[in-house]
Amino acid sequence: MYSIAVIGAGYWGPNLVRNFRSNPAWDLVAVCDLDEQRARKVVGTRSTVEVETSVERLLARDDVDAVAIATPARTHAPLALAAFEAGKHVLVEKPLADNAETAAVMVSAAEAAGKVLMIDHTFCYTPAVQYIRDTIASGQLGDVLYIDSTRINLGLVQPDVDVFWDLAPHDLSILDFILPGGLRPSDVTAHGADPLGAGKACVGYLDLPLANGAIAHVNVNWLSPTKIRQMVVGGSRRTLVWDDMNPAQRISVHDRGVDLRTQAVDAAVQREAVTVSYRMGDVVVPALKEAEALAGVATEFAAAIEAGRAPLTDGRSGLRVLSVLEAASASLASGGTVPVVGLPGVEPELVR
Amino acid sequence: MYSIAVIGAGYWGPNLVRNFRSNPAWDLVAVCDLDEQRARKVVGTRSTVEVETSVERLLARDDVDAVAIATPARTHAPLALAAFEAGKHVLVEKPLADNAETAAVMVSAAEAAGKVLMIDHTFCYTPAVQYIRDTIASGQLGDVLYIDSTRINLGLVQPDVDVFWDLAPHDLSILDFILPGGLRPSDVTAHGADPLGAGKACVGYLDLPLANGAIAHVNVNWLSPTKIRQMVVGGSRRTLVWDDMNPAQRISVHDRGVDLRTQAVDAAVQREAVTVSYRMGDVVVPALKEAEALAGVATEFAAAIEAGRAPLTDGRSGLRVLSVLEAASASLASGGTVPVVGLPGVEPELVR
Amino acid sequence: MYSIAVIGAGYWGPNLVRNFRSNPAWDLVAVCDLDEQRARKVVGTRSTVEVETSVERLLARDDVDAVAIATPARTHAPLALAAFEAGKHVLVEKPLADNAETAAVMVSAAEAAGKVLMIDHTFCYTPAVQYIRDTIASGQLGDVLYIDSTRINLGLVQPDVDVFWDLAPHDLSILDFILPGGLRPSDVTAHGADPLGAGKACVGYLDLPLANGAIAHVNVNWLSPTKIRQMVVGGSRRTLVWDDMNPAQRISVHDRGVDLRTQAVDAAVQREAVTVSYRMGDVVVPALKEAEALAGVATEFAAAIEAGRAPLTDGRSGLRVLSVLEAASASLASGGTVPVVGLPGVEPELVR
Amino acid sequence: MYSIAVIGAGYWGPNLVRNFRSNPAWDLVAVCDLDEQRARKVVGTRSTVEVETSVERLLARDDVDAVAIATPARTHAPLALAAFEAGKHVLVEKPLADNAETAAVMVSAAEAAGKVLMIDHTFCYTPAVQYIRDTIASGQLGDVLYIDSTRINLGLVQPDVDVFWDLAPHDLSILDFILPGGLRPSDVTAHGADPLGAGKACVGYLDLPLANGAIAHVNVNWLSPTKIRQMVVGGSRRTLVWDDMNPAQRISVHDRGVDLRTQAVDAAVQREAVTVSYRMGDVVVPALKEAEALAGVATEFAAAIEAGRAPLTDGRSGLRVLSVLEAASASLASGGTVPVVGLPGVEPELVR
Repeated sequence: MYSIAVIGAGYWGPNLVRNFRSNPAWDLVAVCDLDEQRARKVVGTRSTVEVETSVERLLARDDVDAVAIATPARTHAPLALAAFEAGKHVLVEKPLADNAETAAVMVSAAEAAGKVLMIDHTFCYTPAVQYIRDTIASGQLGDVLYIDSTRINLGLVQPDVDVFWDLAPHDLSILDFILPGGLRPSDVTAHGADPLGAGKACVGYLDLPLANGAIAHVNVNWLSPTKIRQMVVGGSRRTLVWDDMNPAQRISVHDRGVDLRTQAVDAAVQREAVTVSYRMGDVVVPALKEAEALAGVATEFAAAIEAGRAPLTDGRSGLRVLSVLEAASASLASGGTVPVVGLPGVEPELVR
Repeated sequence: MYSIAVIGAGYWGPNLVRNFRSNPAWDLVAVCDLDEQRARKVVGTRSTVEVETSVERLLARDDVDAVAIATPARTHAPLALAAFEAGKHVLVEKPLADNAETAAVMVSAAEAAGKVLMIDHTFCYTPAVQYIRDTIASGQLGDVLYIDSTRINLGLVQPDVDVFWDLAPHDLSILDFILPGGLRPSDVTAHGADPLGAGKACVGYLDLPLANGAIAHVNVNWLSPTKIRQMVVGGSRRTLVWDDMNPAQRISVHDRGVDLRTQAVDAAVQREAVTVSYRMGDVVVPALKEAEALAGVATEFAAAIEAGRAPLTDGRSGLRVLSVLEAASASLASGGTVPVVGLPGVEPELVR
Repeated sequence: MYSIAVIGAGYWGPNLVRNFRSNPAWDLVAVCDLDEQRARKVVGTRSTVEVETSVERLLARDDVDAVAIATPARTHAPLALAAFEAGKHVLVEKPLADNAETAAVMVSAAEAAGKVLMIDHTFCYTPAVQYIRDTIASGQLGDVLYIDSTRINLGLVQPDVDVFWDLAPHDLSILDFILPGGLRPSDVTAHGADPLGAGKACVGYLDLPLANGAIAHVNVNWLSPTKIRQMVVGGSRRTLVWDDMNPAQRISVHDRGVDLRTQAVDAAVQREAVTVSYRMGDVVVPALKEAEALAGVATEFAAAIEAGRAPLTDGRSGLRVLSVLEAASASLASGGTVPVVGLPGVEPELVR
Repeated sequence: MYSIAVIGAGYWGPNLVRNFRSNPAWDLVAVCDLDEQRARKVVGTRSTVEVETSVERLLARDDVDAVAIATPARTHAPLALAAFEAGKHVLVEKPLADNAETAAVMVSAAEAAGKVLMIDHTFCYTPAVQYIRDTIASGQLGDVLYIDSTRINLGLVQPDVDVFWDLAPHDLSILDFILPGGLRPSDVTAHGADPLGAGKACVGYLDLPLANGAIAHVNVNWLSPTKIRQMVVGGSRRTLVWDDMNPAQRISVHDRGVDLRTQAVDAAVQREAVTVSYRMGDVVVPALKEAEALAGVATEFAAAIEAGRAPLTDGRSGLRVLSVLEAASASLASGGTVPVVGLPGVEPELVR
């Protein structure tokens, strides 16, 4: 069992507190926030979990093995660097940092310290996303032809970030997780709109060319009255549809597709296709267990520490996602396509 | 009652035949196709509807007031021009022609002849699209902020056109119909992918900036195992969702949205929005009658002839759609954004 | 090719006319109705299909091999008996007759005349119901444990029949078709309500004990604002769900169920089950072709005549359904459970 | 703030613990269970909530104002009577007791002691059920014509109770809550099946005649692979549909129905209705907030104690539900309809 403290008792912190508190691999010893009242409220009554208001004091403690950082993005790097300095393992909320350059420093610092740096790409720990990753890896879908991801909702218009930085990290981190070589698009084109005059994009689209002529497309929107979280992974053999708002049928695998094999020219029939055939096979809805993703995050964090290995969502994955986001912002600013450079590979980070 | 002949007994012709046959405003006198057997099959047994194999002979007949043209796109212009020459009214399948320049000639010829030129933008005659048009016009949605249209299906990979030219005419013609000033984007950006190596885009996305910072986005796909036909019209007051695959609830109008009015800065609460408020009101699902759209096309064609007016979907609307499609193709070829020029306005064409 | 006439141009007649007209196995020669205008309207313009107003004249014609009867239920028997007398094959709308005794006479008359008597249990010719029948027969579902059928809609309150006689024939005919031994419940209990004071049940429920402790339940309702047509066939190995209002997923086969095998008594855990285990396997959505059921009816009618065999839905199946409906009415009148007696078996009727 | 102890740390106890722990109106002081380990596990680590293994000791404490009883049904009465004896308020899990006679003793004891007796009819505290109750009370639905409730799932086959006693209490308590006079059917008919040979009904149907010719029907099933929780409340003016598995649209109110007003007899048109008209108006999906029902239970329990009034779901409502369940069991045993007698009215119980 490892001991942990959660830093930041705002929006996401309470979820971390709840999960580390109930996870058998962890002992939650403290919650740290500048606002003591807020921290105390998250801890609750009749609890002996401690409240801290000083990060320095917290990091100086010997009974804390690891910290989970859920503070604003610009503070991630200084907090994480201090934690590594103090010999702690670190879990960081997405995004890894507020820019890719700083994030790369965090990755290096973790490796230098021999400590685990994990990014909380929560969705990657859902049974659905793990099933998608396994299904692609097993070859059941064949080659990936296109991926279409939609994440729209009547959402909080954030004071500091646009809709790309608020929502697309989810889509991008999932893409990074399920694609065998990680998310490594050659370039990014972003289209955004700010029809409310909010001073930032509230509706956005990303186009990401993938290997072998495939394409990934991401649709994020803060203004939609309906909540849609859907991803379609089109493959040469089968196509997988993930509808996260449909618990009874989150994943369906369709044995349907187009094959460019046959040649049946019939000049008389004007609308018939000439070189394609279709498979219209069955659909399989796999049985998935229901599990809270954040519980999986906590478990993986402990397992990575225990094994001295990189976690499934390591610092490099956080860095890849951040680099694509930065390119998207550059595309939005320039109105054109922007190359993505310097993406780290998926080789595991050294921990010890 | 007007008399009509259908030219072209291929993919769409039989639907025209069925609808003109049963419409009380029309008397279907003949079906014309180079392939007599095909025409005869469409006419069916125990019928006195005539079969013609010569367009010249057909157009020379005095007992034919109008023709409906359902032949390949490249033949639309010569057939329509000959029909106007012969004093017939003309209904043309989409697209109006295979290029905008020729289409503009058709529009001019119709005006010169004082005959009706109607484009069969079928979806515009569904109760759903008519409801959308009326709802926008009435101001119930407020300003249009964004429109997101998805039309995906495991579709026929066409021998002669890509997925944009096959499917997007539907989305674009609907946009043209429901937007008060018609579809008049300043420019178009198209992203496509041909992951199967079919020699043309099978997956495509269009981004169209609209007036006042709004955006329209179109998603077309031949490779999707699921059939989705959905359009979201986000407005400043309400948002309308059209799900054409859900007959029990095709249209829903959501009194939900974001208002940039209030100012509630709370520095302590890191993820709270600062200048926005939300409406989370009711959803109304209007009662729509079920009606075959093509019956509405036939009725409107007769009504326009009768009144000597332009039909709801006149040649100019067909020309606007075609111009956007051409710009999309240019964008796809160049890899960048392409301006749309020379779009005709929505002033009605003169007929008589 | 056989020649046929349709008798009755009311509610269902036009559908029969349309299907026999377009079916290659049939030549539709005439439509017969006392109301000549109504018959003429169904035939339509520019058609040489004849209109008859006299059944006697129609049956006397040598160029008519078969008749399809779509008149009120009480006239089915006299028309069918006259048709057999005249040497015609007969297709009858459901219900076979207005009472089981008369229906039995029709079955005998058909056998005596060596002619085909087919009942138009339309749903039995849908790809979905045929799939259900095959799946049960193949043993994939194991033993049938329960069948739950719901057929509700805002429907026409009929002047002459209650909701059981209007809607339940569909459910009962499907049960008769898919159950290996046909529908042969030992007894029937009906519950109905007439909360509008319409003078007849507008809401109804049927409970039908099946073999081996299984149960069938039918829910019919004229007052529902939503249209539901759903049937669940619970089996000991798998369970099949048929949702006819969901074209994208009409049938799903669930590898989920309860097995009474294990024995794990744990007194301490108060809510744990003691002798059961659960299967939570995948769901398979089979690919079904879309086909109009009535086309299948027409084809089967011709095939049965051609082969000199009983059709899939023969007079005996119509008689079984009618007998259950009569018992339901008796149950409703008496307020208790009523035995069903004298059900014919599924041995095929002799035709020649 | 009142202090409370939860008795029973089995299936439902942890939910009560979680809710009383986080509710500002309550201070959870202890969890009591014969199995100390189980209680300790529910309390969790780093908590000062106490663990008790003796009910006597617990009830003797002065710092406990109320108890929540989540033990097997047969122990509810002795525990509640002892709690009233000790001057505690009592919340009891459903069913109130294992028989109506004992339950009536509990109701009397609570009144004699001047203490609150509340039954945890959890669903009554969901925003959806509260909306249904308000909508019926406001007259928006008109007269209730029928109520159809379905609650099916692949559920735990319980060792001690059949599917009626396991699932129908939910439906019956909701009916009791939403019907203005409470659930007071004149009689009950139950149909059940045990096709697995489990020794008890696993599939069940209840028919309950309501006032003015209306009917309520309940469908419960442990063997269904799909989870359905749906209730339709058909009214003379509007019909409400509650689909609890559809969070985006739990409630929809349909302005659709049948009116028995017009008289249009047309003998020639065989299938036309003669004395009815139809309304096919809009559907409204009201905005409902998402809230955990059990939080509402805890809040109502405190509010009733504070005000010295009966809670919304008082002992009498628990007694009415229990009486109907007993009649259902009698119906199942006898194979016929069984009258329901001795139902208490909805006058509020006296507390002080």
